[in-house]
Amino acid sequence: MSPRQIEVSEPREIGITELVLRDGHQSLLATRMAMEDMVGACADIDAAGYWSVECWGGATYDSCIRFLNEDPWERLRTFRKLLPNSRLQMLLRGQNLLGYRHYEDEVVDRFVDKSAEAGMDVFRVFDAMNDPRNLEHAMAAVKKVGKHAQGTICYTISPVHTVEGYVKLAGELLDMGADSIALKDMAALLKPQPAYDIVKAVKDTYGDVQINVHCHSTTGVTQVSLMKAIEAGADVVDASVSSMSLGPGHNPTESVVEMLEGTGYTTKIDMARVYKVRDHFKKIRPKYAEFESKTLVDTKIFDSQIPGGMLSNMESQLRAQGAADRTDEVMAMVPICRKDAGYPPLVTPSSQIVGTQAVFNVLMGEYKVMTGEFADMMLGYYGASPAPRNPEVIALAAEQAKKEPITVRPADLLAPEWDSLVEQASALPGYDGTEEDVLTFALFPGVAPTFFEHRKEGPKSVARTEAQMKAAAEGQANALSGPITYNVTVNGASHTVSVEPA
Amino acid sequence: MSPRQIEVSEPREIGITELVLRDGHQSLLATRMAMEDMVGACADIDAAGYWSVECWGGATYDSCIRFLNEDPWERLRTFRKLLPNSRLQMLLRGQNLLGYRHYEDEVVDRFVDKSAEAGMDVFRVFDAMNDPRNLEHAMAAVKKVGKHAQGTICYTISPVHTVEGYVKLAGELLDMGADSIALKDMAALLKPQPAYDIVKAVKDTYGDVQINVHCHSTTGVTQVSLMKAIEAGADVVDASVSSMSLGPGHNPTESVVEMLEGTGYTTKIDMARVYKVRDHFKKIRPKYAEFESKTLVDTKIFDSQIPGGMLSNMESQLRAQGAADRTDEVMAMVPICRKDAGYPPLVTPSSQIVGTQAVFNVLMGEYKVMTGEFADMMLGYYGASPAPRNPEVIALAAEQAKKEPITVRPADLLAPEWDSLVEQASALPGYDGTEEDVLTFALFPGVAPTFFEHRKEGPKSVARTEAQMKAAAEGQANALSGPITYNVTVNGASHTVSVEPA
Repeated sequence: MSPRQIEVSEPREIGITELVLRDGHQSLLATRMAMEDMVGACADIDAAGYWSVECWGGATYDSCIRFLNEDPWERLRTFRKLLPNSRLQMLLRGQNLLGYRHYEDEVVDRFVDKSAEAGMDVFRVFDAMNDPRNLEHAMAAVKKVGKHAQGTICYTISPVHTVEGYVKLAGELLDMGADSIALKDMAALLKPQPAYDIVKAVKDTYGDVQINVHCHSTTGVTQVSLMKAIEAGADVVDASVSSMSLGPGHNPTESVVEMLEGTGYTTKIDMARVYKVRDHFKKIRPKYAEFESKTLVDTKIFDSQIPGGMLSNMESQLRAQGAADRTDEVMAMVPICRKDAGYPPLVTPSSQIVGTQAVFNVLMGEYKVMTGEFADMMLGYYGASPAPRNPEVIALAAEQAKKEPITVRPADLLAPEWDSLVEQASALPGYDGTEEDVLTFALFPGVAPTFFEHRKEGPKSVARTEAQMKAAAEGQANALSGPITYNVTVNGASHTVSVEPA
Repeated sequence: MSPRQIEVSEPREIGITELVLRDGHQSLLATRMAMEDMVGACADIDAAGYWSVECWGGATYDSCIRFLNEDPWERLRTFRKLLPNSRLQMLLRGQNLLGYRHYEDEVVDRFVDKSAEAGMDVFRVFDAMNDPRNLEHAMAAVKKVGKHAQGTICYTISPVHTVEGYVKLAGELLDMGADSIALKDMAALLKPQPAYDIVKAVKDTYGDVQINVHCHSTTGVTQVSLMKAIEAGADVVDASVSSMSLGPGHNPTESVVEMLEGTGYTTKIDMARVYKVRDHFKKIRPKYAEFESKTLVDTKIFDSQIPGGMLSNMESQLRAQGAADRTDEVMAMVPICRKDAGYPPLVTPSSQIVGTQAVFNVLMGEYKVMTGEFADMMLGYYGASPAPRNPEVIALAAEQAKKEPITVRPADLLAPEWDSLVEQASALPGYDGTEEDVLTFALFPGVAPTFFEHRKEGPKSVARTEAQMKAAAEGQANALSGPITYNVTVNGASHTVSVEPA
């Protein structure tokens, strides 16, 4: 019997993971926030009393080198320095690491090693297919370096997903030595009752294992789900400071703290610090307005199961093909493709793979053209699916991709690749000779060369400047800061005229 | 024992009051929505299966005649026609009706009579001081015309506000014949635990009385409060369709419906209809962007107890005095004034009265100049306060206002006034001879004359036009899509100039 069942009069302490430095801006501002806009909040974040501070992994690595000319390893080391009292947390896509393919085990080991060395404490490890074999090597690597290995259940809804299934998966994660279990609701699909049922069943089955619950807020129900998860025994919940919350983001940190007042639960959060963090990001957020999602609440996700990010992705694909009017057809196609693929959760990269195939099916006919990734998914190269896949589509995939279906762990088919990666990276101008650079090349071979070449130029923020913010606020017509050139026709004669403020 | 305690296997049905036609746009768009922007949603609202549709009262009457040149009684009759299957609901400030002073009982009777005649079904009656004597005549008037009299508890936080106090107030409302009890959380202060405790205690004390719970969403905790209120036995909860929700508004209707799935509670809401309502207001809302509040989440309200609307009001008063930098002092002064006044809830009109006095105290010294309204509040002319008022400030109020403190029901001091109101209204150009016009004059004597005079010109929307929306979307300077022709005079000579992007 756990202490909480005896001392009912003592409120149980709930931990909070602050997300603003990673998933907060990833979900709200397309991961575009520059390090310079985060450093000012770190002292207060560090002192606020969070269970952990998520600040790395997910899409941040990609964004650092693709958009911001920042070295992601430098970013991690900076966070380590600025957050000396905090557990740093990252999101790791199991055998995919932070890339979009499976890596051979040695690459996984080296990545985890270097991340721990640079200061990472808590590794939240997940797999888009919920295939435990895709997590086990990364989990073992984390254990080996003595860090916190958090095994993740990706929550989704389908005819084959049940509370019992999630409990079984939790058991498999615990068998790997998971120090805690994360229930990850990346699409805001987790309603209060299943939140309660899953957490309760995991606790009832495995005793007092630590459970962390991660919800997005898009459907407007998940603040309640966090409450019910806590009532069922959850130990830590994720939140993002209010000025970087809601919509496709997360529930507000302050609101999570406040909702517990007077209940049998409490937090040790220093709200004065949180308000400083809030005020910091309140000023920063408008600088990234152009990257901001417009969605605030959308419960239609419950029907379509299409996360917001995936939807906007599909819409831009359709627009590019001049088929913007076919969104509804694609939305109806997604559940079909997902069923054929054995009901994978929709999360990076499965969401993109299923979404793109749905677009192809609508534009070119059902499975007339299969993407390489979707064929791979059908053939088992992303791992086992929650339910059996459609045999007819498997056959088509084999035919189009000229590959055989597999049932082994996908990474078992990979030959050692580290030496080759070192060799390739070494040939790139700007490569600095570190394992970190080899990993950057391994994860993003298309982007790394340009990044290495231009790294010396230093971080390049994509935020609006002070002057641009001011100009935007003042309106445009009267905010000419430099000359604008017009073709002006006067009495039938054309002139090139340059206009600027007098 | 109520049926729900026996049949635990059958989900208990929860009703929803849809707020979008009144408090939704009042809270988000400063009550500026024109009737023409609501009619298109009515058929779907009417068929969605709500317990009631709030569509009148509060600030809408004032806004109709002050800003929109709409006759509020016409608006009510139109809603009655367009929502034939719905219970129409209004918010009524007890003896204040929809104005800002106390009215003599006959005026209250006539107002309720005419509202019922025009189609009102459910009267949510409240008093800003929670003084039952200020509600009892209005409640009796509603009972007399055979309509639903909903007695209201205004929820607030103070050292003297307790669950027991709210239960006692509920009992006094039931003694007046209340058909239901509303727990009204106008400032989003109601946390989950007190929501549960109050609803539970009222049910435990008085049996199965219907309880409606109304929360704003500003603090980000009240969706959870609605859940806990439902678990405690609440029967109806208020919500506003998602495209007109959150921030200083309310929890999203769709999210309230969805959060109950799989629990012991259910609704009979037709989501297909709700989505049509959502899509309707998604298009309408941007037309009123200039009136929109910027606040999305603010938990600081828990400390200051200053509702968002009150804060922006105080800030604009300070700006007008060139003292915008003194907001913090005023925010610290509000709790002092509120304590001196005996801890009234802060809601129209008490929020404005306390807020304005706080501004005066900061600018001119503590109680050096008292507003007439604050002096009246100190002297009992708004009713009894929850706690004793500060005797020193009462003495100052008596001195400055040259009035004696009272302990009777304020309206008891009023002489019959209906005949005089008729006489005054009759003298106004444009007065149409109806009791409705007399009531309009009684409620807003300063605005009614202009409205009567211009009523014939018909409704005047303050929304952006289609063209303005388009121009705003395209941006200004660089939104020249075709040549624009100007007449330009240079050094006295006129030229026809055509300009287009180079």
